[in-house]
Amino acid sequence: MEKISIQKLKWIKSLQLKKNRDKEDCFIIEGEKIGKECMRSIPDDIGLIGCIAEVENLVPKNLRDRSFILSSKEFERVSRLKTPNKLLIVINKPSIISFNSEKKFLILENIQDPGNLGTIIRTADWFGIEQIVCSPECADVFNSKTLQASMGSFLRVTVHYKELTSFLEHTEYNVTGALLDGEPLKDDSMKKSNAIMLGNEGKGISKSLEKFCNNPVKIPGHGGAESLNVSVAASILMYEWTKK
Amino acid sequence: MEKISIQKLKWIKSLQLKKNRDKEDCFIIEGEKIGKECMRSIPDDIGLIGCIAEVENLVPKNLRDRSFILSSKEFERVSRLKTPNKLLIVINKPSIISFNSEKKFLILENIQDPGNLGTIIRTADWFGIEQIVCSPECADVFNSKTLQASMGSFLRVTVHYKELTSFLEHTEYNVTGALLDGEPLKDDSMKKSNAIMLGNEGKGISKSLEKFCNNPVKIPGHGGAESLNVSVAASILMYEWTKK
Repeated sequence: MEKISIQKLKWIKSLQLKKNRDKEDCFIIEGEKIGKECMRSIPDDIGLIGCIAEVENLVPKNLRDRSFILSSKEFERVSRLKTPNKLLIVINKPSIISFNSEKKFLILENIQDPGNLGTIIRTADWFGIEQIVCSPECADVFNSKTLQASMGSFLRVTVHYKELTSFLEHTEYNVTGALLDGEPLKDDSMKKSNAIMLGNEGKGISKSLEKFCNNPVKIPGHGGAESLNVSVAASILMYEWTKK
Repeated sequence: MEKISIQKLKWIKSLQLKKNRDKEDCFIIEGEKIGKECMRSIPDDIGLIGCIAEVENLVPKNLRDRSFILSSKEFERVSRLKTPNKLLIVINKPSIISFNSEKKFLILENIQDPGNLGTIIRTADWFGIEQIVCSPECADVFNSKTLQASMGSFLRVTVHYKELTSFLEHTEYNVTGALLDGEPLKDDSMKKSNAIMLGNEGKGISKSLEKFCNNPVKIPGHGGAESLNVSVAASILMYEWTKK
């Protein structure tokens, strides 16, 4: 494999910014495990592979024409992670599968932390929930930290960014909302729900969206904590929702 | 309030390392919300408060003799967070409340990520579980990131570090273990459990500890993800365990 050029390195680094990812219509994943999964399942969507010499042999023959060697220092420079991996892949954004209102989905309002968003995507995938509708202020699904925390589940869960008020008005979805003054969650609380809504880490669901939650629930707590982490609350609700 | 001395700044920075925290028997919390909670609930355990001038008025009169002003630059230098806060507190480690085998507890093996440990502490607090036994390899409960993710719950949940094999042998605890080949979790799966065990982020519970889990369970999944985040798995199990 060829050594990477300075130009290509600069281009990869530029993709750390959302505006550049949007312009170039691609994003970066880092890591051997997630990298192997992408090389196997979406080889045609791969634009470029960069790796350090040590893991060169992970790259299959059919992708070597797009693959380049980086030194550890070069890798550090383009990585967004504190402990950089050995393999990165630039992926062309897949065409978004259109939203299917017949299927279960999550609604996320203003989730700021990419780690939380990624964990919610991973958990949704575990429970077979394939669609998430995010408000435009949510973290970017193609942010490296989101992709990292999603552990490859971004390949199976489709994230749609929509202005939530106009998405929800004139619909009749049965929406469960995680609200601190909701009804205590019970076994059959969510039987009829089409969607679960979760709000911002600090503020919860905003007043203007609360009215769309016709099933406000609270996870029963018995201790001293004021609230649960949003990805934890999401996972308990998804567990109860998909329980047979 | 006085401006902080270079010596004190250096000392605060030294507490980023576990060995120094152990030697000095103290730790640091950062953030206004968690800071206010500590100033209110454990004023006697506070060794030193550092803040930028803007939030000086948050410090109550009885603690001002131990409080110092930092410039934003100085704060950045001693902070472990990417977006530094405006208030930090050095707290003397509380004397550990002894382990009570009559009460519910968690057992954590080799949880590496301080964010995961902190989230588990926060969730345990929510569900009224007051004790966690960690293997010595687990992240440090007094690491800033653990404390940050725990959102003040470290004040109510006691974390004990113990060599797990010697802790568990010769006991007859009923232990639920989160294992990918366990029995699907059901409503009454954990009725008799004294503890829930969770393993390392990548490897799960090790072979040598599996034998102490007389109730191996798996959270039923229907999708494509290989596993759940450990703090997510812990939270679903705690939810089911403490359900009335």
